[in-house]
Amino acid sequence: MRMVDLIIKKREGLALSKEEIAFWISGYVKNEIPDYQTSAMLMAIIFQGMTEEEVINLTSLMEHSGQTLDLSVLKGVKVDKHSTGGVGDKTSLVLGPMVAACGATVAKLSGRGLGHTGGTLDKLESIPGFNVQINGERFVKQVNDIGIILAGQTASLVPADKKMYALRDVTGTVESIPLIAASIMSKKLAAGTDTILLDVTVGNGAFMKDIIQAETLAKLMVKIGKGLNRDTRAVLSNMDEPLGLAVGNALEVKEAISALKGNGPEDLMELCYTCGSIMLMQAKLANSFEEAKMKLERVIKDGSAFNLFVKMVEAQSGDISYILNPDKFIVADKIIPVLAKTSGYIKTIEALDIGVSSMRLGGGRATIEDVIDMSAGIVLNKKVGDKVEKNDVLCYLHTNKDDKEIASIIGDVEKAFVIVPEFVAKHKVILEIIE
Amino acid sequence: MRMVDLIIKKREGLALSKEEIAFWISGYVKNEIPDYQTSAMLMAIIFQGMTEEEVINLTSLMEHSGQTLDLSVLKGVKVDKHSTGGVGDKTSLVLGPMVAACGATVAKLSGRGLGHTGGTLDKLESIPGFNVQINGERFVKQVNDIGIILAGQTASLVPADKKMYALRDVTGTVESIPLIAASIMSKKLAAGTDTILLDVTVGNGAFMKDIIQAETLAKLMVKIGKGLNRDTRAVLSNMDEPLGLAVGNALEVKEAISALKGNGPEDLMELCYTCGSIMLMQAKLANSFEEAKMKLERVIKDGSAFNLFVKMVEAQSGDISYILNPDKFIVADKIIPVLAKTSGYIKTIEALDIGVSSMRLGGGRATIEDVIDMSAGIVLNKKVGDKVEKNDVLCYLHTNKDDKEIASIIGDVEKAFVIVPEFVAKHKVILEIIE
Repeated sequence: MRMVDLIIKKREGLALSKEEIAFWISGYVKNEIPDYQTSAMLMAIIFQGMTEEEVINLTSLMEHSGQTLDLSVLKGVKVDKHSTGGVGDKTSLVLGPMVAACGATVAKLSGRGLGHTGGTLDKLESIPGFNVQINGERFVKQVNDIGIILAGQTASLVPADKKMYALRDVTGTVESIPLIAASIMSKKLAAGTDTILLDVTVGNGAFMKDIIQAETLAKLMVKIGKGLNRDTRAVLSNMDEPLGLAVGNALEVKEAISALKGNGPEDLMELCYTCGSIMLMQAKLANSFEEAKMKLERVIKDGSAFNLFVKMVEAQSGDISYILNPDKFIVADKIIPVLAKTSGYIKTIEALDIGVSSMRLGGGRATIEDVIDMSAGIVLNKKVGDKVEKNDVLCYLHTNKDDKEIASIIGDVEKAFVIVPEFVAKHKVILEIIE
Repeated sequence: MRMVDLIIKKREGLALSKEEIAFWISGYVKNEIPDYQTSAMLMAIIFQGMTEEEVINLTSLMEHSGQTLDLSVLKGVKVDKHSTGGVGDKTSLVLGPMVAACGATVAKLSGRGLGHTGGTLDKLESIPGFNVQINGERFVKQVNDIGIILAGQTASLVPADKKMYALRDVTGTVESIPLIAASIMSKKLAAGTDTILLDVTVGNGAFMKDIIQAETLAKLMVKIGKGLNRDTRAVLSNMDEPLGLAVGNALEVKEAISALKGNGPEDLMELCYTCGSIMLMQAKLANSFEEAKMKLERVIKDGSAFNLFVKMVEAQSGDISYILNPDKFIVADKIIPVLAKTSGYIKTIEALDIGVSSMRLGGGRATIEDVIDMSAGIVLNKKVGDKVEKNDVLCYLHTNKDDKEIASIIGDVEKAFVIVPEFVAKHKVILEIIE
């Protein structure tokens, strides 16, 4: 078999067999097939696509290109939720304790933030002492003791994806539904949970700007999961404005704490209840969506979800006094209101611009070497559909940057709020459920 | 400027500016842009094509990526003919002396053969002593003294094409009309002649299998040449059977000598007269096709074209006794007739199969390290349109290989002759002239 023949086959629009994809992926991981052949293949895939069978084979071969996790030592049904990325997305911090409090096992491996999207590990590290590097016996013990862990990945999972993603990033081959689906699903499958729920975000702050594309991606990922014998479902959620009100690490943790105490913003709670209900059904801990939702409402109301969050922070060496008294969290030196320039209704809050502005205020990383200012970020005072008068506060910037830098950011944040004279309905956060 | 943005621009079907193509090509030649980005760009070009303006810019930038030849020290109008490759194509050996005998200047840089196509330099080296490595003052003196030289390239012309062609070959990005056109034309332009005539071969033995594609390629190359101020024209010629009767190095030189003496096969002579007439018009040595053709017929009839070939061989240290008495050429130990298995008319002689079989008989190279057996090859006894009876000789294999190897080749050669019961017309060798 020669790689050039496989490239030509794909270029001509023919489907590759499992053996052919295996030849490519294993050769690529072993550096026997050079980057320049893989990038030509990726560009041919951009134009010719892949059949479902090809994507399932590609995903499975990528999944097994390195270590895979065996979570069978953990008690219970291991559930996982994965978001394709958003702004202000602290769902994992709220949803994890909620479903764990209902009896599901949450052994979640999270990532760090880059660019306009935040990362769960960074957010957790705004809690003094919180340790995300937990593995081996301590990992197993924590999960079996309290049913939940939120930690960083230590094993070398899916090296094929790591290598290929770096190549795609510099060769203009990121924007391919089959390649995106295989990349996400290979990592989720390798992480070893029993069930996978995908939160595919749609809108200006998401990777998928368009609902048709997002739906195609979600359906394909569900097919891949099912094709590889893993209970996989998906929700499409709206990312045309940030989720909740807070954007930024400590700010989002404080919002998550409020949510676990029953005071979360409407859109965040709707997303958590919907995702949580599906996850409990996947774990066979509820027979219907309604039953699942009632269980989730109960663990919020009776404090057991919040208590579990406290237990988790304690188990991971975090200072629980911050959770019990969120006023202890570090606060930025400057808290600057951004005012409405006209009256009307808020039509859009460009989530991408809010995410990038939060990063520039110190709340995120432009490059992986950057250090995050845990206190920095943006807190919305208005959401889409809200009526505003001129000079009402749209949001507050939290930052320690100097005034000159802040000035240019204020302009971008103002522009992110699109205000129109006519009435605008609130956004529905859940657009579709795919099972 | 970032290469990834240029790749995405091309992927989205937009045209690249001259500055953008210059960024790519100069970066690629200097190894600042890696192969994996260039291969992704090439694959995007396969799918999205290039505008005429883009191809002209690409060609010009490739042409000037290394040295270019300045032939201004040579007297007369420097004419050049380039074939896109065929089987049994000894045109340069015949056409060169013909047009030079009419007063055009032929300073031709030729190549070597690989795979099923032969190379002019290899053919000439079947003349004992013939030296293709002539450069500097001796090159200039020969051309100015006798008006013709057939030599190998010594300068480092068009490094961008060398590098890119090697990459295209292993990344499935050869089959792109704009890339093929830029590759051929950048080399022809860098070689510095005043006029360029392109012989674009079409058919099973050619790179272009299809007349529509060949016509597209020819027209594009003519536009590139004109766009870069070089008199450029093209003919489309049939390569659905080998050109003439002989395939193989010494065998083809002997056929070229016969042709220069006025005894050439019909198709070879038609191609030489057509190409030669166009070249004389390009050199302003004739005002019409008819006038040019009369001049060419005269230099064949009066022996001046043949005499010039002898002079050229002498000037390049070749043993002219072989030219004056072609029976002296080395002859293979075995000359094996291949017989018709049925009666009928010859519909096709698969030129590709004949070329590959000749190579396997010893007449060509499978890899650049192979040594050629100058005596080996195939001599056709029948051409397309000929009527044959069962057991008539179709062709003769000339070889020094052992009988076991020959046996498998005979079968392939038999299959290359497609014999049908109904009448078949002879092939027209010239399909179209593009000016």
